[in-house]
Amino acid sequence: MLDDAPSFTPTKRSKVKRNHLRGAYDQETVFAILDSAPLCHIGYVIDGQSYVTPTLVWRDGDRLYWHGSSASRMLRTVREAVPVCVTAAHFDGWVLARSAFHHSANYRSVMAFGRAEQVQDAEEKEAALKLMMEQIWPGRWDALRPMTAQELKATMVGSMRIEEASAKIRNGPPVDDDDDYALDIWAGVLPIETGLADPVPDPKLREGVAQPAGVTQPNRGPR
Amino acid sequence: MLDDAPSFTPTKRSKVKRNHLRGAYDQETVFAILDSAPLCHIGYVIDGQSYVTPTLVWRDGDRLYWHGSSASRMLRTVREAVPVCVTAAHFDGWVLARSAFHHSANYRSVMAFGRAEQVQDAEEKEAALKLMMEQIWPGRWDALRPMTAQELKATMVGSMRIEEASAKIRNGPPVDDDDDYALDIWAGVLPIETGLADPVPDPKLREGVAQPAGVTQPNRGPR
Repeated sequence: MLDDAPSFTPTKRSKVKRNHLRGAYDQETVFAILDSAPLCHIGYVIDGQSYVTPTLVWRDGDRLYWHGSSASRMLRTVREAVPVCVTAAHFDGWVLARSAFHHSANYRSVMAFGRAEQVQDAEEKEAALKLMMEQIWPGRWDALRPMTAQELKATMVGSMRIEEASAKIRNGPPVDDDDDYALDIWAGVLPIETGLADPVPDPKLREGVAQPAGVTQPNRGPR
Repeated sequence: MLDDAPSFTPTKRSKVKRNHLRGAYDQETVFAILDSAPLCHIGYVIDGQSYVTPTLVWRDGDRLYWHGSSASRMLRTVREAVPVCVTAAHFDGWVLARSAFHHSANYRSVMAFGRAEQVQDAEEKEAALKLMMEQIWPGRWDALRPMTAQELKATMVGSMRIEEASAKIRNGPPVDDDDDYALDIWAGVLPIETGLADPVPDPKLREGVAQPAGVTQPNRGPR
């Protein structure tokens, strides 16, 4: 990264404490990890109890969005400027070392902090929902049966400006103690790969409806 | 599930509010989702701020374990009976419907609640770490360079008895509004699959060290 590239400033809240070499705060790294993880985990607090809800998260600039039913506990809670943490994580591989202690995982993760807001304005809400869809399947939104006013009302959209964020990355082979490299123990990495299997058309699909070209290659998540 | 099968009792904290058909509280379902998700997300609170840390989680009966460096913020925080939430989630597929509103995801998730404890006793700590390894690669622990007292000291092990847990599952085709099935819009599922690529031996592997038979087929995570 360039020294003057946009970057989040780490504070006590977001500074990566362990293994500093794995920490990154530049927007390019943080955004790349978020964008490739449609399923994130949102953490929030009710009466001192922590809740972690897995949900679809999308990004527009330095703002994250999520959505769901108006009946959702998570969405009802995280709408009043409550502090939240949005975490994205990719599990990229098992790392097998020559000692138990140096076993590890290859991963890319982001913790993003901010205050939740609820998107109230109907137009802004619809724009955010369209953005979510367009980021995954460009053009699909306009090909669908249009959203009704009732559906828009039944959908809550949450949002958060990223105030702080940190990325943490581990990759590469195991790192063993110097003396241990002489041991006759297998060490290496088992890479984990995520991809799409063949599409399963809806059993109720109308005869003759062709699969649109882009549908099997969503722009987010695995391809 | 059998009516008398072991089950968690849902309360306000863990009851699945949306789409009750997708909620499950029986131990068999909850444990199966946890056991197949080595990477979980742990939620905890510091000064009213929520933190969500992705980390390896393993299970022994109704008890969950995690570990890390003694320098870890998460591990230093969640050791004094603080309420935590451990969430496991599998993203199994994109669900494309004929309206934006009915687009969805296939997934399996668990939210487990309890109070964190720190495993202090050295023997108990080592037993928990051995269990973690044995669950992934049976037999590997004894083949490794033994753990030193210093390594054991530098490792913190956290634990939580599952007080409550709920599972949430969605699978199958899209569910559209009755009228929409007549539309000429493609609908279906894009299944997401996770698996292991070919192992990458450590470049510093001693010549002649064979890859143990079980290593490419860990008992947790993808195979």
